[in-house]
Amino acid sequence: MASVEIVTIGTEILLGHLVDTNSVHIAHALADHGVDVYANHSVGDNAGRLAAMLEDVLERADGAVTTGGLGPTVDDLTKDAVARAVRKQLVLHEPSLRAIEERFKQFGRPMTDNNRRQAYLPEGCIVMDNPHGTAPGFIALRDDGKFVACMPGVPREMKPMLAERLLPWLVQRFALRDAIYTKTLHTVGIGESTLDSKVEDLFRTLENPKIAMLAHGGRVDVKIMAKARSREEADAMIEPVAAELRKRIGSGYYGDDDTTLSAAIVRRLAERGLTLATAESCTGGAIADAIVEAPGASAAFRGAIVAYANDVKIALLNVPERTLEATGAVSEETAVAMARGARDRLGADVVIATTGIAGPLGGTQDKPVGLVWFGLAFGDGEIETRRLTFPGDRADIRERATIAALGLIWRRIERDVQAPLGVQAQTGVP
Amino acid sequence: MASVEIVTIGTEILLGHLVDTNSVHIAHALADHGVDVYANHSVGDNAGRLAAMLEDVLERADGAVTTGGLGPTVDDLTKDAVARAVRKQLVLHEPSLRAIEERFKQFGRPMTDNNRRQAYLPEGCIVMDNPHGTAPGFIALRDDGKFVACMPGVPREMKPMLAERLLPWLVQRFALRDAIYTKTLHTVGIGESTLDSKVEDLFRTLENPKIAMLAHGGRVDVKIMAKARSREEADAMIEPVAAELRKRIGSGYYGDDDTTLSAAIVRRLAERGLTLATAESCTGGAIADAIVEAPGASAAFRGAIVAYANDVKIALLNVPERTLEATGAVSEETAVAMARGARDRLGADVVIATTGIAGPLGGTQDKPVGLVWFGLAFGDGEIETRRLTFPGDRADIRERATIAALGLIWRRIERDVQAPLGVQAQTGVP
Repeated sequence: MASVEIVTIGTEILLGHLVDTNSVHIAHALADHGVDVYANHSVGDNAGRLAAMLEDVLERADGAVTTGGLGPTVDDLTKDAVARAVRKQLVLHEPSLRAIEERFKQFGRPMTDNNRRQAYLPEGCIVMDNPHGTAPGFIALRDDGKFVACMPGVPREMKPMLAERLLPWLVQRFALRDAIYTKTLHTVGIGESTLDSKVEDLFRTLENPKIAMLAHGGRVDVKIMAKARSREEADAMIEPVAAELRKRIGSGYYGDDDTTLSAAIVRRLAERGLTLATAESCTGGAIADAIVEAPGASAAFRGAIVAYANDVKIALLNVPERTLEATGAVSEETAVAMARGARDRLGADVVIATTGIAGPLGGTQDKPVGLVWFGLAFGDGEIETRRLTFPGDRADIRERATIAALGLIWRRIERDVQAPLGVQAQTGVP
Repeated sequence: MASVEIVTIGTEILLGHLVDTNSVHIAHALADHGVDVYANHSVGDNAGRLAAMLEDVLERADGAVTTGGLGPTVDDLTKDAVARAVRKQLVLHEPSLRAIEERFKQFGRPMTDNNRRQAYLPEGCIVMDNPHGTAPGFIALRDDGKFVACMPGVPREMKPMLAERLLPWLVQRFALRDAIYTKTLHTVGIGESTLDSKVEDLFRTLENPKIAMLAHGGRVDVKIMAKARSREEADAMIEPVAAELRKRIGSGYYGDDDTTLSAAIVRRLAERGLTLATAESCTGGAIADAIVEAPGASAAFRGAIVAYANDVKIALLNVPERTLEATGAVSEETAVAMARGARDRLGADVVIATTGIAGPLGGTQDKPVGLVWFGLAFGDGEIETRRLTFPGDRADIRERATIAALGLIWRRIERDVQAPLGVQAQTGVP
């Protein structure tokens, strides 16, 4: 078992002008490899304070993992502090100098003394090359075996260096055997307690792999965690549990790990040759925006009519004026009319319509802030409706409504996976 | 001058399962009061490690400010660690016990021994009451004058305690006189270097207040920072500089501090009795969504047509088929036709149209990924166009394009602030 503390270097991060996302990423990755993370620290670009902090860290833990402080203007003081903490000199590292020279030649830019100084590193350190930037990372070693591993602060430089250089070194150095490997199953449209009742026995009995649930904003994730010696071994343990979970969850399950809900919808629509359109009032284009976020959206997405003003609902979505007068813009009838109008105008197989009260003003006893009516058209069938009320402020309500709309789309198309459609011929471009 | 380090307590935060927003808030507040923040730390619920960390902090700084670790299940070990670090005993604090008893009586819940233990505090500490929760905060004092101030981790409990209890105590204790007060001016559509050239002399010569620039995603903020004894004194120093900056920046300036670009647009449109609509392809509804995000958007926003498929551009925006064939969907001609079509269909005074290539696929030599054409209609005048190319991935490009579109709208309506419009009569509902 190895123990580590994480140190984020940079005045901008210390004072909160830049948000640190690295330390959480590193903490997760280390924990997954069975490394004990004792603490995180954030310190400004100040050599004295950094050196003192590193000395303290090495008193408590086997090593420090740092990010940041390797840019051309500040890396002198970072490396100076690290060298002091491990009691080594800074010496020229020839291969790093050549790599930096090579990079500057490629880009045709002149090299400064500052750039050259980036090749000075603590004596005897292990260099971690940086194919995504100029500053190499390194692992500085103290004679008693303690270490300080320094990586750049830019996440797209740090992440591959961590995965491909630092973690393998730690695994070997500390003979780490079991790491924790995870797979996350994403669900939408199922309440946490409903999901819990479906998987409660697994939650209670499984030990390796074990499962955990994490709810966030209308979606619930089920995380499967296996302790194993390799990704392959872990996958062999995880996959049967994942298959059982998917079966139990049913149509609320939409994908694993990095899959987004909109990407899952776009892929499934494209697979089935279906098209999608939206008719939005309170969500104001957010559903369309979420769909277009997925690369390849053009295979399935036709477009949207955002009808914020009532007369636009009438003119572009054919909502009857008498419906608006009799039931109001936020009503089941209006949601149905909007979905039908968008189906006619945009000629899509699947249409979702939203109309609601996002606040802060406009709520009444009968129609409180947070109330949203959804209308869902599938093929040329009847329009289905749903009434939901969301908590929170304007931003929360709109975000929840957008996720709920995507969830309704997803569950509707999943429900019909086995059923024959036969609708494409009857819908078309207006 | 006082120096402080911030310590966030809690395993959930250390491992990144909960996001820490407290330390940035505290760092800002302390810095604004002239307290030097040396470092931030995050540590799990572990009394030994916390005590060792606090001892180290008190070696370097005048005090530690902690959040978290005061909930009923973990506060024993937190207070234990703090007591060790300041070398005091935990003793019963009668007023805190009575306050806790009172609270439980109010809510009609039974009190447990755990709740009662919350009233044990380091001997001689200063109690900071917590009107928003059960756990009081406290400032524990070591005989040499160093201190550990402990606050709850729940932000809505911590923030008032910091503002109303801890900061006034620090001001008195360390005879802090000058705090730093800031005002931020937001701009859009002006490059960092252009803005720099407009304010460079102020940047160089001003000392109190001084100014700084911060660029993020297509917008540049100018921050004015004054060192003063009160907000009033600071405002008197800041306001003349702000007025000069607003004059120099011109129509790119859209608001101060918490003002968002979409809120500024909605307010200005409503003031002038103008309406807005959008016609979106690559932005996919994101501009409309941003506008609707602003409370009160219904006063100015009519709606949007998201025409992602080409035949929707033809059917709903009257883009001539021959335009699409001759110049392609991503072209100046299409952007113009989209803006004109949306003006006709949605009857708005101001219309923005976007068509571009967000990637990852679809780019060519002439029309690379990142290219976006904008069309802007104002009143019944000629459609203005703009061609911009954005770096980054699909999400970056779409976000930049959305901000650029909002910037074009803002600068266009600002440009016409003095000019008579006389257009409302000529546009209307289709």
